[in-house]
Formats: sequence, structure tokens, C-alpha cells
Amino acid sequence: MSDLTPERVGAAWASLGTGDREKITEFWDENVRFEVPGLHAYSGWYEGLDAFLEFFGNMFRLSGGTMHGENVTVLVNPEAGYSTDVNRITAVRAGAAADSTSPYDTFAVEALHLLRWSNGRIVEGRWVVMGAGAETTALWWSPRDANGARRQVV
Amino acid sequence: MSDLTPERVGAAWASLGTGDREKITEFWDENVRFEVPGLHAYSGWYEGLDAFLEFFGNMFRLSGGTMHGENVTVLVNPEAGYSTDVNRITAVRAGAAADSTSPYDTFAVEALHLLRWSNGRIVEGRWVVMGAGAETTALWWSPRDANGARRQVV
Amino acid sequence: MSDLTPERVGAAWASLGTGDREKITEFWDENVRFEVPGLHAYSGWYEGLDAFLEFFGNMFRLSGGTMHGENVTVLVNPEAGYSTDVNRITAVRAGAAADSTSPYDTFAVEALHLLRWSNGRIVEGRWVVMGAGAETTALWWSPRDANGARRQVV
Amino acid sequence: MSDLTPERVGAAWASLGTGDREKITEFWDENVRFEVPGLHAYSGWYEGLDAFLEFFGNMFRLSGGTMHGENVTVLVNPEAGYSTDVNRITAVRAGAAADSTSPYDTFAVEALHLLRWSNGRIVEGRWVVMGAGAETTALWWSPRDANGARRQVV
Repeated sequence: MSDLTPERVGAAWASLGTGDREKITEFWDENVRFEVPGLHAYSGWYEGLDAFLEFFGNMFRLSGGTMHGENVTVLVNPEAGYSTDVNRITAVRAGAAADSTSPYDTFAVEALHLLRWSNGRIVEGRWVVMGAGAETTALWWSPRDANGARRQVV
Repeated sequence: MSDLTPERVGAAWASLGTGDREKITEFWDENVRFEVPGLHAYSGWYEGLDAFLEFFGNMFRLSGGTMHGENVTVLVNPEAGYSTDVNRITAVRAGAAADSTSPYDTFAVEALHLLRWSNGRIVEGRWVVMGAGAETTALWWSPRDANGARRQVV
Repeated sequence: MSDLTPERVGAAWASLGTGDREKITEFWDENVRFEVPGLHAYSGWYEGLDAFLEFFGNMFRLSGGTMHGENVTVLVNPEAGYSTDVNRITAVRAGAAADSTSPYDTFAVEALHLLRWSNGRIVEGRWVVMGAGAETTALWWSPRDANGARRQVV
Repeated sequence: MSDLTPERVGAAWASLGTGDREKITEFWDENVRFEVPGLHAYSGWYEGLDAFLEFFGNMFRLSGGTMHGENVTVLVNPEAGYSTDVNRITAVRAGAAADSTSPYDTFAVEALHLLRWSNGRIVEGRWVVMGAGAETTALWWSPRDANGARRQVV
């Protein structure tokens, strides 16, 4: 079993981008549960690695691949089996102008993941947004644009 | 062209329950636009009678057919071509216990429709909820239950 | 007792700007109840004319006097004693740049008032915002600006 | 300078209950900034220890002293100067029935504090609520009760 270090937390997130299931399951348990915050169409607990990965696919689609995260810091408690990684995340809604400033189009939050580890793998994760991120990202997640038109990509 | 009276407003809503397209289009224009308020998965403008009727089908499904409205009053301005019907609406989420008091399960709002009429038919409608109805019904509309589990019926 | 007409509804709102209590009470009952929608610091039912007028004073202060309404239409039901006036309302937060586009600074909603009349006077009023107005104005009403700083004028 | 350990994080929170300024400033910098999440009347950044302590006094008042936290785990990154303490927090609104289940009365969230330490003291703190805590606590924080009446204690 690998030690729970900040490096291992970073490697767990990096593994998702490889699309390599074997690599991913070095870090993420097949039965991982993951919570997306809020009340929008994608919020709630995703049960199992497949559901979790499908959510990330949806995020990629909704943001037209523009989602970008910048890590601020990582904290670990190896004895208790918890980690926290703090990040700044930005994205633009698929189909929106790249320079839009509308909160219906732009996603910009400071957020963190609280991960619980067991036997060297993540068994539970919660995505948490800080400040008024829940309220402002509700506009981004909604199926309506600033004019109330229902979006093509939902 | 029929006069715009409170009776005609009531008949327009009643027509939707008949499932009779000919009856429905006595009141609702084929190109009617209808707005569902909020930021949830079903909010925004529905364009055209088919989209509008599909939304009502979704409401029926989400509420397991429990949606119930009680009219309070109807106002009309025939010259300008506007009507307002004020209603109390209740429903229980499909799959929830019938006696649940959780705001994730129970829908209970005072609401109104603002309808714009042209040539005797409704060409635009907006559903509007009063008080804190937008915020409390956001829990009902969300795909998560009180425990955060993603629902079976969404 | 005066008839309930669209003109009388307009005159009721216009009376508030006069600051003339005698003029105001031609339209507004001393025991009027008025509801401000939402969950923010100023939402809920105001009981009595004094509380109602104090709310309007707060709106003036919060918006630095920039609140502006444009009437779209007025509907009445004289028998039942109800009126609805539909309006477009704009304002800029006191202290914000006049050309700000931030939803924390700009208030822009389509809204309506549902008023109940008795003996020629308004005894109950509800302010209702359409579309996603509840969610977007929550940012305007909040005591935090776009950076999360607590505002000077709250 | 003291080491940043889970014990020291716990002691920092415990110091607030002593009301002993000298004890408190062993952990909290006089210029500490603290963010309360959401869009309600108490949200935003509090600048300085006095403002931060005043907020906690308001929490005590709003909850009639019922606010209760149970720690789940604590994580630290001494090199970067960050800690996270994860907690379950419950409270009942002052004036509400102790056994109320209304979300307007009961506060029940899983939450965490992200604290930044410098020279052995907390210089920045952010309170973050998980899941749909932002949306459900908005009802608790609001000045209106379940009937829309404006509360006595705000």
C-alpha cells in the first residue's frame, strides 16, 4: 500500500486524464462514491467509478473542454485516511463566446476536494466550492442562458 | 375570435388535460412560447406547442401524477391581450412517501401564469412562483434527494 | 369607493413617490401587508403601511436612487378585487460603477405585483419576479460584492 | 512558533469559547480575515479579529446558543501553512420549536474550515459547506420563516 502524500493526491487526479483504467484504479476504488455539490442537474452522489467517470465526461462536454484547474495546496492526514486539495477552477460553457463575462457562461470558483482513502485508494470524494460559488455556478449549470433560452448542450 | 374572459382562461388550462390536439389549439397557438422559472433542469423557455406539452408530460412523470392546482382568481386585460391566473399548486415527488414533509419531496407554492393572447390564442406564457417558491422548489426539482442520492426519476 | 381600473393601479404606485401620507392612503390601506420575494435580508411579509414604506426607503438607499420601472401592462378583476401590474425594473447597486455588468451590481428583472383590493384600497400586495430573477437578484441583494467583500451599504 | 498540528487546530477553535482575548490571539491573528459562505445577510469576508468574533456572537444569537459541532477529522500541511478541519454542525433557529424539522428552523450541515497559518497564527479562514448545504442553509439564514413572516431575531 502506498503512503498518502500530497504527491499521491496529485497523481490520483492526473490519472483521470490518461483514460487508462488500470492507471486510474491504482488510485480510485471501483466502488468510489463522489459528490457533486448543488441542486443542479448534475449534483448529488455518484456511486461507483463508472458513474464518477461519466460525470467527468459530462463536465468536459458542458465546458467544451475548457475546464482548467490550478492547484493551490494539498493537505493530508495519512492516519485518518483523508486528503484535501484546494484548487482554482475556470471554464467557459460550450457554445459561449470565449470572452464572455456572463455568469451563465463563465465558471470561476475556488474549490476543494475532500477525499477519503482506504487501503491506498480513494473510496469517497466530495467536491466543495467556496464563497458564493454554489449560487453563482448554479447559473452556469442551469439549462438556460442569460436570456432564458434552453441551451443546446445540457 | 373569442373574447378574452376569465372563463376562457380556465378553459385553456382545462384543454390540456383532454389530450385532444384540436381542442388544445382552440386556445394555445402552435408557436406558443412558455417559460418555466428557476435554474433547474426543466427551467427556461419552451418554444412551440410540442415542447410545451412535453414539459407538462415531464411534470406529470416527476410528480407521479400528484400535481394539483386550485385556482384563486383570474384577471384579464382583453385590450392588451393579457391574462393572469393565480393558483395554489401542490405535488409530491414520484417515489416519495405520500406524507413526506421534506422540501425535497413536497412541492407547495402559490404561483401564477402570465399569458399573452393574440387572435384569440395564447402566444406566450410565463409561470411565476411567489414568495420563496423559487428557492424551495429548487430542492424539489433537483436530481438529489435529502440525503444527496441521485434520484431514479429525473 | 373608487372603481378598480388600470388607471387606479398606476395612481396607487405613483402616490408612493409623493411622500404625501394622505394621498398614499387614498390607495394603500394602513394595515396593508406586502411580500418581498426571496430569501435575502429584505424578503418576507411587511405588516402595515409603515413597514411597507420603510422597505421602499431601503430599496431607494440600496440602489442609490437608480431604481427604475417601466410598465408593460395592467390587469384588473374588479369583482374579485385583484390587480396585476407587469413591469421591467432596473437598478444599479449604490456604490457600483454605473456601467457595471456584474450581477452583484445590476438589478434587471421582469416582475409583477399582485395586489388585493378591499373597499377601494390595497390590503395585500406581493412582488413577484419572473424567469430566473429570484436567483440572479439574490446576488444583488446579498451583502457581498463579486469579490466577497462585505458591502458598505446593506 | 508552535508547530501546526491537528491538536493546535482544535485548540484554536476551543480558544474562541473562552472569551479570553489573550488566549484567542495565541491562535488567531489580529488581522485575520474570515469568509462566511453564501449570499445571506451574514455572508462575505469579515476583516479583522473583532469582526470575526462579532460574527460568532451573531451565530450564537441566531441559534439561541444551540449551535453544536462535532469534529470528523483534521488535516494539516505545516510547510504550506494550511489546515482543514471537517465537522458536522447542527443548530435550531432561536425561537423555533426544538423538534422542528423545517429547513427554515434547522441547520444541519457537513462543513469544513480551510485555515491559512502564518507565524503560528491563523491569518485567513474560509467556512465551506458541503453537498446542498449552501441552498438549504439559505432558508435558515433568511429573515423569513416558513410562512414568509419576517422573524423577530435576525
